[in-house]
Amino acid sequence: MPKAVAGPEIERLIQLLARMPGLGPRSARRAALQLIKKRETMLAPLAEAMRVACERIMVCSTCGNVDTTEPCTICRDPTRDPSTLVVVEDVSDLWALERSGAVTARYHVLGGVLSALDGVRPEDLNLDSLVSRAADPAMREIILALNATVDGQTTAHYVTESLKGHGLKVTRLAHGVPVGGELDYLDEGTLTAAIRSRTPF
Amino acid sequence: MPKAVAGPEIERLIQLLARMPGLGPRSARRAALQLIKKRETMLAPLAEAMRVACERIMVCSTCGNVDTTEPCTICRDPTRDPSTLVVVEDVSDLWALERSGAVTARYHVLGGVLSALDGVRPEDLNLDSLVSRAADPAMREIILALNATVDGQTTAHYVTESLKGHGLKVTRLAHGVPVGGELDYLDEGTLTAAIRSRTPF
Repeated sequence: MPKAVAGPEIERLIQLLARMPGLGPRSARRAALQLIKKRETMLAPLAEAMRVACERIMVCSTCGNVDTTEPCTICRDPTRDPSTLVVVEDVSDLWALERSGAVTARYHVLGGVLSALDGVRPEDLNLDSLVSRAADPAMREIILALNATVDGQTTAHYVTESLKGHGLKVTRLAHGVPVGGELDYLDEGTLTAAIRSRTPF
Repeated sequence: MPKAVAGPEIERLIQLLARMPGLGPRSARRAALQLIKKRETMLAPLAEAMRVACERIMVCSTCGNVDTTEPCTICRDPTRDPSTLVVVEDVSDLWALERSGAVTARYHVLGGVLSALDGVRPEDLNLDSLVSRAADPAMREIILALNATVDGQTTAHYVTESLKGHGLKVTRLAHGVPVGGELDYLDEGTLTAAIRSRTPF
């Protein structure tokens, strides 16, 4: 921690900003100064937006999404396909899929993936609620949209096991060449998967 | 602007965070999610720190520093040398010099440097107040701690001209090899300056 050179209020702001992902001690200092300089246009609105977010945002008890309503906007949307659930690791993955516009169903946020290294066990994830949602007679398919990492795939297997006996179709995202991607830069695993899952042209 | 996928309160928070220096749209999204997840330990304290900063921080009318008192803590410090002023471009430079602990005098923040390109003229800088502070009979030396850029040096010349006739010693920071720096990586200008200003060993 470098020597404190500004007043305690400014130092506290810098310290808190430095804990944000993407900002270090130096960039937090720069950000704080910028905020202070643009008090009316940046600091005041941001303080207010944070206060509002702090007061109103809650975690949806159905799917684990964050929103200002309970259940969340997606869970309440009557146009969403009730026969499918998309299982994601985190809210950021839900946001990414929503931006793609490819999902017409609802989600289930696990809140993490199983990890022996990080000590994440099945009871740390929102698995029980997933199993009870899957028990809904209207449910037909569970799409596992988990990251293609070792922990993500381990979790996918565990979730599949937990859902056995419900007579559901459990699917996962396709592996392959990213759109716009160059073969030369892709790893062998991705290329092998892309060849194996080739589609008629 | 990507499609809005979260509630308006969250989207507003993301938009405001994205305007902070060091954060782009993507990292603002990640930061917002992190803040929401750690509501009690991060979002609430940060919202409060920003509110407090917004309410209490002001610009010192004497030197241009930002602080919660008027005049600022440095200007009110009776142990500071009253015969010297350190002229800096910005509050961040003042902070940097304070961290070094090498300055025992007070500061004067210009609030920028002259720049034909950016249209910064002498009347846009805190020059008048510098001239009146320099007129103090106790004043002996003005240290120009401006950046070693073209605009910084142009400004240094302009400030020096403005202070003529007060019988003051006007000095600038030494050029040379940064402590810990390797000669191989330094530009010719710095090396030439370091050779010219060599000191007895």
